[in-house]
Amino acid sequence: MLLPPLPRIMFEPLVRTTLLEDLGQAGDLTTDAIVPPALRTVTALVARQKGVIAGLDVAALAFELIDPAITLEPAHADGSAVAAGDVIALVRGPARGVLTAERTALNFLCHLSGIATATASVVAAVRGHDTRIVCTRKTMPGLRALQKYAVRAGGGSNHRFGLDDAVLIKDNHIAIIGGIRPAIERARMAVGHLVKIEVEVDDLAQIDEVLAAGADAVLLDNMSPETMARGVAMIAGRALTEASGGITPATAPAIAAAGVDLISIGWLTHSVGVLDIGLDHRAG
Amino acid sequence: MLLPPLPRIMFEPLVRTTLLEDLGQAGDLTTDAIVPPALRTVTALVARQKGVIAGLDVAALAFELIDPAITLEPAHADGSAVAAGDVIALVRGPARGVLTAERTALNFLCHLSGIATATASVVAAVRGHDTRIVCTRKTMPGLRALQKYAVRAGGGSNHRFGLDDAVLIKDNHIAIIGGIRPAIERARMAVGHLVKIEVEVDDLAQIDEVLAAGADAVLLDNMSPETMARGVAMIAGRALTEASGGITPATAPAIAAAGVDLISIGWLTHSVGVLDIGLDHRAG
Amino acid sequence: MLLPPLPRIMFEPLVRTTLLEDLGQAGDLTTDAIVPPALRTVTALVARQKGVIAGLDVAALAFELIDPAITLEPAHADGSAVAAGDVIALVRGPARGVLTAERTALNFLCHLSGIATATASVVAAVRGHDTRIVCTRKTMPGLRALQKYAVRAGGGSNHRFGLDDAVLIKDNHIAIIGGIRPAIERARMAVGHLVKIEVEVDDLAQIDEVLAAGADAVLLDNMSPETMARGVAMIAGRALTEASGGITPATAPAIAAAGVDLISIGWLTHSVGVLDIGLDHRAG
Amino acid sequence: MLLPPLPRIMFEPLVRTTLLEDLGQAGDLTTDAIVPPALRTVTALVARQKGVIAGLDVAALAFELIDPAITLEPAHADGSAVAAGDVIALVRGPARGVLTAERTALNFLCHLSGIATATASVVAAVRGHDTRIVCTRKTMPGLRALQKYAVRAGGGSNHRFGLDDAVLIKDNHIAIIGGIRPAIERARMAVGHLVKIEVEVDDLAQIDEVLAAGADAVLLDNMSPETMARGVAMIAGRALTEASGGITPATAPAIAAAGVDLISIGWLTHSVGVLDIGLDHRAG
Amino acid sequence: MLLPPLPRIMFEPLVRTTLLEDLGQAGDLTTDAIVPPALRTVTALVARQKGVIAGLDVAALAFELIDPAITLEPAHADGSAVAAGDVIALVRGPARGVLTAERTALNFLCHLSGIATATASVVAAVRGHDTRIVCTRKTMPGLRALQKYAVRAGGGSNHRFGLDDAVLIKDNHIAIIGGIRPAIERARMAVGHLVKIEVEVDDLAQIDEVLAAGADAVLLDNMSPETMARGVAMIAGRALTEASGGITPATAPAIAAAGVDLISIGWLTHSVGVLDIGLDHRAG
Amino acid sequence: MLLPPLPRIMFEPLVRTTLLEDLGQAGDLTTDAIVPPALRTVTALVARQKGVIAGLDVAALAFELIDPAITLEPAHADGSAVAAGDVIALVRGPARGVLTAERTALNFLCHLSGIATATASVVAAVRGHDTRIVCTRKTMPGLRALQKYAVRAGGGSNHRFGLDDAVLIKDNHIAIIGGIRPAIERARMAVGHLVKIEVEVDDLAQIDEVLAAGADAVLLDNMSPETMARGVAMIAGRALTEASGGITPATAPAIAAAGVDLISIGWLTHSVGVLDIGLDHRAG
Repeated sequence: MLLPPLPRIMFEPLVRTTLLEDLGQAGDLTTDAIVPPALRTVTALVARQKGVIAGLDVAALAFELIDPAITLEPAHADGSAVAAGDVIALVRGPARGVLTAERTALNFLCHLSGIATATASVVAAVRGHDTRIVCTRKTMPGLRALQKYAVRAGGGSNHRFGLDDAVLIKDNHIAIIGGIRPAIERARMAVGHLVKIEVEVDDLAQIDEVLAAGADAVLLDNMSPETMARGVAMIAGRALTEASGGITPATAPAIAAAGVDLISIGWLTHSVGVLDIGLDHRAG
Repeated sequence: MLLPPLPRIMFEPLVRTTLLEDLGQAGDLTTDAIVPPALRTVTALVARQKGVIAGLDVAALAFELIDPAITLEPAHADGSAVAAGDVIALVRGPARGVLTAERTALNFLCHLSGIATATASVVAAVRGHDTRIVCTRKTMPGLRALQKYAVRAGGGSNHRFGLDDAVLIKDNHIAIIGGIRPAIERARMAVGHLVKIEVEVDDLAQIDEVLAAGADAVLLDNMSPETMARGVAMIAGRALTEASGGITPATAPAIAAAGVDLISIGWLTHSVGVLDIGLDHRAG
Repeated sequence: MLLPPLPRIMFEPLVRTTLLEDLGQAGDLTTDAIVPPALRTVTALVARQKGVIAGLDVAALAFELIDPAITLEPAHADGSAVAAGDVIALVRGPARGVLTAERTALNFLCHLSGIATATASVVAAVRGHDTRIVCTRKTMPGLRALQKYAVRAGGGSNHRFGLDDAVLIKDNHIAIIGGIRPAIERARMAVGHLVKIEVEVDDLAQIDEVLAAGADAVLLDNMSPETMARGVAMIAGRALTEASGGITPATAPAIAAAGVDLISIGWLTHSVGVLDIGLDHRAG
Repeated sequence: MLLPPLPRIMFEPLVRTTLLEDLGQAGDLTTDAIVPPALRTVTALVARQKGVIAGLDVAALAFELIDPAITLEPAHADGSAVAAGDVIALVRGPARGVLTAERTALNFLCHLSGIATATASVVAAVRGHDTRIVCTRKTMPGLRALQKYAVRAGGGSNHRFGLDDAVLIKDNHIAIIGGIRPAIERARMAVGHLVKIEVEVDDLAQIDEVLAAGADAVLLDNMSPETMARGVAMIAGRALTEASGGITPATAPAIAAAGVDLISIGWLTHSVGVLDIGLDHRAG
Repeated sequence: MLLPPLPRIMFEPLVRTTLLEDLGQAGDLTTDAIVPPALRTVTALVARQKGVIAGLDVAALAFELIDPAITLEPAHADGSAVAAGDVIALVRGPARGVLTAERTALNFLCHLSGIATATASVVAAVRGHDTRIVCTRKTMPGLRALQKYAVRAGGGSNHRFGLDDAVLIKDNHIAIIGGIRPAIERARMAVGHLVKIEVEVDDLAQIDEVLAAGADAVLLDNMSPETMARGVAMIAGRALTEASGGITPATAPAIAAAGVDLISIGWLTHSVGVLDIGLDHRAG
Repeated sequence: MLLPPLPRIMFEPLVRTTLLEDLGQAGDLTTDAIVPPALRTVTALVARQKGVIAGLDVAALAFELIDPAITLEPAHADGSAVAAGDVIALVRGPARGVLTAERTALNFLCHLSGIATATASVVAAVRGHDTRIVCTRKTMPGLRALQKYAVRAGGGSNHRFGLDDAVLIKDNHIAIIGGIRPAIERARMAVGHLVKIEVEVDDLAQIDEVLAAGADAVLLDNMSPETMARGVAMIAGRALTEASGGITPATAPAIAAAGVDLISIGWLTHSVGVLDIGLDHRAG
């Protein structure tokens, strides 16, 4: 699977902010008081559940920003499936720094791996269908680039990264301008030639107008698999088809079987649980 | 319930960052293309499920930073319980700005309300016991102050805000220094006079040493309610008692009945789902 | 013409940085020494040449950040053509603040208006053809959003805003992967469904492979109008066609006549001169 | 020629901002999709025109911030003249990073070299005269320190860096306070002992008062070479003399021959074109 | 003595800001003009007075951020006492960078060492008593973490780091809520279980109510040693006792003899003089 | 006295940072717990000692950033002398915000007023002499612009604001380049025409060379008043004369009587005590 790493410059400011959020003005009172400065340690990031890993570079940076003498050596790469008990990486270095950075590193790693794991479960559920699983703009504040990366780590794909990289016309836009056609036409005129236009429809009756106006993609929102299948048939390849609306691993196969090109899922980034990963001290 | 608002200065940088994350360099392509500049709108933030609200000031700031002409008038305050269908607030102003800020405002509001709602459910589960529900440092990167606030909105209380405001001695610290007593003694010597010391114990046999060394609180980690009850009896009010370890609304009552002063729950801030809130356009 | 304003949040950090760059630690030595604090002034932003205006909101913010008592009242909106001698806006308020902010406000306004003016001149040159003028990623560091806005103010359109909003496959990419088809296929698989793919060709012989692989747009780089016309004929509407390579108002008509959909011009944002605008003191 | 490098700390924030401006939340879609991660490359920064180089450290930092494994080895130093076709530097390292950083690195290097080249052309035009070429505060927002450095690279000198490092009394200041003498006196009293005072005159009749009040320099604004020569004679070495007003390489020699100490030129920093430099892939 | 270093991430932003404050847009005019680029130097940080050192890591970072080729090799560690004439550290590297960073490095080092020295003098004055010397929130803007660290380097301890890490109830709070007991009760209910509560009393008559309400510490403000001794006797170990109010090395012994646990001193961080340290050039 | 206010944009970032330093992630625990939200208060900033005020705008901003409903109404302006007991300003608004911002506002106001007061005492000591009191670059990290402003508020003047606004050649520079004359000549060639050059001399024998090379000012370092008087006589008005070296209000008159133009004093900004100012609650 193709999973290019994010350049560190894209997440370093967030990792700095997050470490400072935890350190406050006084730093790590407990570790500073108890752990001798010369003590070195070898610790292991261990999966407590099965899942898919994402965020090792971010975790590594958290350790390194606290103490550049700490190294993180991955045993698995981002995007890999791990079993409960698997060692994901070894973290070596001064014990103080490892303990001080531990929670921040894990908060990133567990959350991003949680997203990758959830994504992988939906991707697995639609295996055999030619349907991509994509995430939305319903992301945690400040975490969008990392969360979208985690979705890719889980085998998913990304919908829009922001308001700025594609047009998605929703019911409000249509209501305001008084019709699908004028909305699409205004969008086509206003945006650059590399910007695609997708239109949300709640009713199959809207599809003809959407296609006539030249949309690149149609978002079929909150429909039954049967209705979606009819929509896909109506569209007949003239535009991409996307299904949305509370889709889960359980309901995804039927939706995929309806023939949609994409299933978009907000909860992958706004309501997913962590993958439980711990830092076990091995030696030091 | 006492819920002092956070000063805006504490979350304004995050709201700015989050809006810019969504706007990119090109801004809201769809809205800019379609919505006439003079159009004003009245919209309602509506709860799609029952829950507890948190984050209205943050949502209001998101709208205001996009266009100061937008106002958010709350119908319920943070910390209030709402039913499905309840209007939480009215948002009025230029339609362009409302649509552009909508997703960012909702991403904050739905997530924080999700935390408040989950907290409230555990708080309700232990009603009648003298047990506080507290959150941990397992928070989303960059969101700690807001997430901790949301826990308070749900009726919970806050454990440490960071590494800097109390001592929490865990198994690694004890292992490194070779004993509970030296760990506590070093901490007591090192930290300020207003800093309390809590010690995590995995085994009731450790309690005597913890108390002898003068800990302010004992964290009983991953024990059955029965074991916790025995621990509480051993401690006999000489220190605060905290229970932790995957506690849910279902298991919380038995734990609370064991007599612990506090139940700490990581998932309130790291794995909770959003409260579903939508922005309905009423007029404009 | 449709020219939605940029939300202030998108350029406020840059305006702050630029003002501080000019103020240093000592502030405006000259004005502080000479101008009495109570003095108010009325000044006019006056075009010294004909051109198209862009950046009035940015200039207004520069004045306002120095002193919120200063107001800028536009006589023309961004995107308007002005003649030499036209008053563009009146700036009223405390004289000290007006003088202190003057240079920063003008640096933004003259540069952005220079871009709008240059863009308008090329747009005028291709009038009658169905060809859009677009800018590139060859922008001034830190100024991309504003420069792209200025191009829109001049009647142009925007190509990619960054590496992140569309795929543009150039000769290096093709050379590295060893062919046009594999490059396009890898891109199609990797990117989201709303991301378009454009391919740069130096030789008409490449067009068949580009079209076969399903590119959305073809960039005809550095060709004569005649060659471009042949390229357009070969493509025959199966993809958008873009011309690039040092195109000027003088050469643009012939290129447009070749039938390309787009002409992209780097110098609009990297090598354009200012529109000369001055601040004339009217009263005070 | 003396050209001390700028400490990296002075331009690193701008380079980071500029890279993030180009990367957005999604990063380099094209390169990430097409270029294999293990591929290394050797590329050459090649001058496409003759000119003077400035900005190699800045370009190097852009590459390094994307991937610290990339090295830039200069073949010429900043301030050197190059011919069309000259290799300016070799850039080696992982191909992905080189391609991702390429545009940002070039945007800095081409712009700054454009300034150095333009400056050098005016400096050459006044060779043989004892006249310095200086730039002004008419700079691009956020780029002042780098642009002023580029002027030095081209053999020019710098006028004020901001409002804070010298006094420059213009017509408005004089009008407001009602006379040249009170303006200079107030300035002399208010500012530090190491701050010089320059006064702009539009009319030679003002010179006596300026000199009587003790100005350190006189700015002769928008005058013919003949008038300037008379002004220089009147001043007779009692103050420095500066000429300004749309001076070009063509008009500079006559102005210099008038005997002024300085010629200040705004367009060097606000309206200059890039030096065309490309990144050619050599191997990899 | 236990003096864990601050993680560099905690003070790097401030050191960057401070260097840029000194460099402005033009950098070090003097050094750049005079010092040849290839020249290397060996310099010594030398104490001009006896005192206690604090801030070597901060000074080292100042040099390193200007030029990573500069190294600082400490001869004494933070917290060490030095005599007049002692070499504190050697600084080696390119002479330009050493001279450019010198003032910033010294401004940090002299100020922090001044705090450490003053603290040590008060700590010495109370030697033999079981009384800690603590600093307050009366710190220099932006410098709190470093100043508090310097107090620890001088052998002192830290009171609250901010409004957020403990409750300190002062006269205003009591006046507003109408009594000591309700103030303490409200605080106890509102804050986390690891937050201690201290109450300021101006009159020994308040002590009974403070103790009855369960305060953890009592601040005896502005009392004579005799009155404080009576207060300590009344409290009788039921709460910690802190003395405050303009206490100096001269008055501290009597206060300590009164039996208070803590003496808090604002001037350690708001009004202390620098320790005079110079940078002597040894070779180069 | 002329004391132009600093534009708020120059100190707002520091005030924000300082407030957040005090608020941490949890905010003002004490006030939030105890003070009812609806309570309003009227408080007075009262001088507890005589002195000169500086920093009212900064204090006002601290209150306003916590709650825009708080107003600060000055009874005296910056630069005014006040007596012990004088009300400096009234602060009105919500009691919570006033108490939360109090310490930050006072930390700025007391420190800056301390500088103004100390400056005024030295200025008073040299009254009758034509000697200015100036501060140096020995400032607190991050506070330079405000501290220099406070010196002006006390009637002093400012030496260099940074390395960037004048040349000051010290012994190291001379030693490195091997002579005073080459140092001055290199500086004169390198810097802009509005940059003055000052040279530090430790020995009157150096003066002739300094003057011959054309320095604008001579810094007489650490000399007796008699030696300085001889130096002033040797210089005979051909350059400005500055005295430095641990000068106090007690020693300043003799130094001033020696005829120097300037006395520079580092301790005004690095070692001065606060002016004691309190916030008294009047009503609420």
